[in-house]
Amino acid sequence: MIIIGELINASRKAIKAAIEAGDGAAIQKVAVDQAEAGADYIDVNAGIFVGKESEYLKWLVETVQQVTDKPCAIDSPDPAAIEAALSVHKGTPMINSISLEKERYEKLMPIIAGTDMKVIALCMSDAGMPQTVEDRMKIADELVGGLLRNNVAVANIFVDPLVQPVSVDSTFGVEFVNAIEQIVKTFPGIHTACGLSNISYGLPSRKFMNQTFMTMAIAKGLDGAIINPLDQKMMANIIAAEALAGKDNFCMNYLKAFRAGVIV
Amino acid sequence: MIIIGELINASRKAIKAAIEAGDGAAIQKVAVDQAEAGADYIDVNAGIFVGKESEYLKWLVETVQQVTDKPCAIDSPDPAAIEAALSVHKGTPMINSISLEKERYEKLMPIIAGTDMKVIALCMSDAGMPQTVEDRMKIADELVGGLLRNNVAVANIFVDPLVQPVSVDSTFGVEFVNAIEQIVKTFPGIHTACGLSNISYGLPSRKFMNQTFMTMAIAKGLDGAIINPLDQKMMANIIAAEALAGKDNFCMNYLKAFRAGVIV
Repeated sequence: MIIIGELINASRKAIKAAIEAGDGAAIQKVAVDQAEAGADYIDVNAGIFVGKESEYLKWLVETVQQVTDKPCAIDSPDPAAIEAALSVHKGTPMINSISLEKERYEKLMPIIAGTDMKVIALCMSDAGMPQTVEDRMKIADELVGGLLRNNVAVANIFVDPLVQPVSVDSTFGVEFVNAIEQIVKTFPGIHTACGLSNISYGLPSRKFMNQTFMTMAIAKGLDGAIINPLDQKMMANIIAAEALAGKDNFCMNYLKAFRAGVIV
Repeated sequence: MIIIGELINASRKAIKAAIEAGDGAAIQKVAVDQAEAGADYIDVNAGIFVGKESEYLKWLVETVQQVTDKPCAIDSPDPAAIEAALSVHKGTPMINSISLEKERYEKLMPIIAGTDMKVIALCMSDAGMPQTVEDRMKIADELVGGLLRNNVAVANIFVDPLVQPVSVDSTFGVEFVNAIEQIVKTFPGIHTACGLSNISYGLPSRKFMNQTFMTMAIAKGLDGAIINPLDQKMMANIIAAEALAGKDNFCMNYLKAFRAGVIV
């Protein structure tokens, strides 16, 4: 499982305050904690700062990279902010994310084309949010097709089928996980990734439901996740589900996590 | 989810003692507790008592049916013991189980043929335990085919693909859940069921792994389970997974379970 640590997001109070105060040490602690807990990418998001997003995103990348070798997932819908962050990023980052929304697609594609950056391909278009497997596959076909034509390797693409709340429509969970299965079958070698907390919107015991949904998505082929790696129960779920999904030879990771106290 | 409560099994010390002492009240408490916790069938098993299995199984059925309307799952590999239990069972029981083992198959099929009993069809043959999806489908094809030819309705058949430990071979989890998916696709209207604690054999934190595997199997279509319905975490997992699998309109069961304290 490729883990994208989601905690450095300015929509969280402590992160917003640290950015405004220029408190690099606070940001760096969150980066190191996530890396140590298993994050493969450190997501950075300064989207709430209208007019200052580019400046802050650059600072976040520099600040994070001073203390960890993990690359960043540069998290913005704005191609200009992404370019600013890329100008200082060392190594190979992940772009979070391109979509089929026309302006975003047209401005971001030239930045990604021909590079070896990882990219999250969000199943969203100007027509709105997808609901069914078919809605998602229609967007995924166009989006992945476009990336491939622009010389992005299939192994660098992480399709995010976009989770929607099961409280709104009882089919939304199934349609999402079936889209994961379909994407993995349709594009051999591709990755999938998602933030999945939306699934439990409007319901009680959200963390429990998010963990359960993660397990189901792994059963269907999910191999990337935008999560809080410090959430030990979520990490335990991922490790157990991957062992059961045949992705952990001799259950070595599972046993290691047990000995480390992650699995209790 | 069709829940088969597994607790009245003579391989458990307290049950063995209650049977030997003729302590009907002890058995009845376990039956009522399971029914109240959501069991649809009360499994009864006296397999450890060689020579007395038939007598004790009969007594278990009578004892259980004095206090609950839930039918029994008559749990024995021995057709003679099953017949003894059936002679006293009121209503429509479940037979746990028929298999493709020649003697068991030939003696049990005439008992089941043309009835409206439910039957667990265990994917086991004289050739041994199945390992791959193909092994399981070969047995399932013959076993389900035989049941259908003997006028057992497809909706009364619960195929059990037979769980094997993921610690023995890292593919065993995947092959099992993929068999569930394949069985559901191949025989429209059929059910699946299993006891799944074998999955975690030889590993630590077995309950956690069993719960995680249950969630994955539900994602692939499992709709019956031989479990301890008093295991609140397992029940919570099932309820959440079914909501996420689109089997709980408006998340009513999930919300009800939350209000009842089953989901915490």
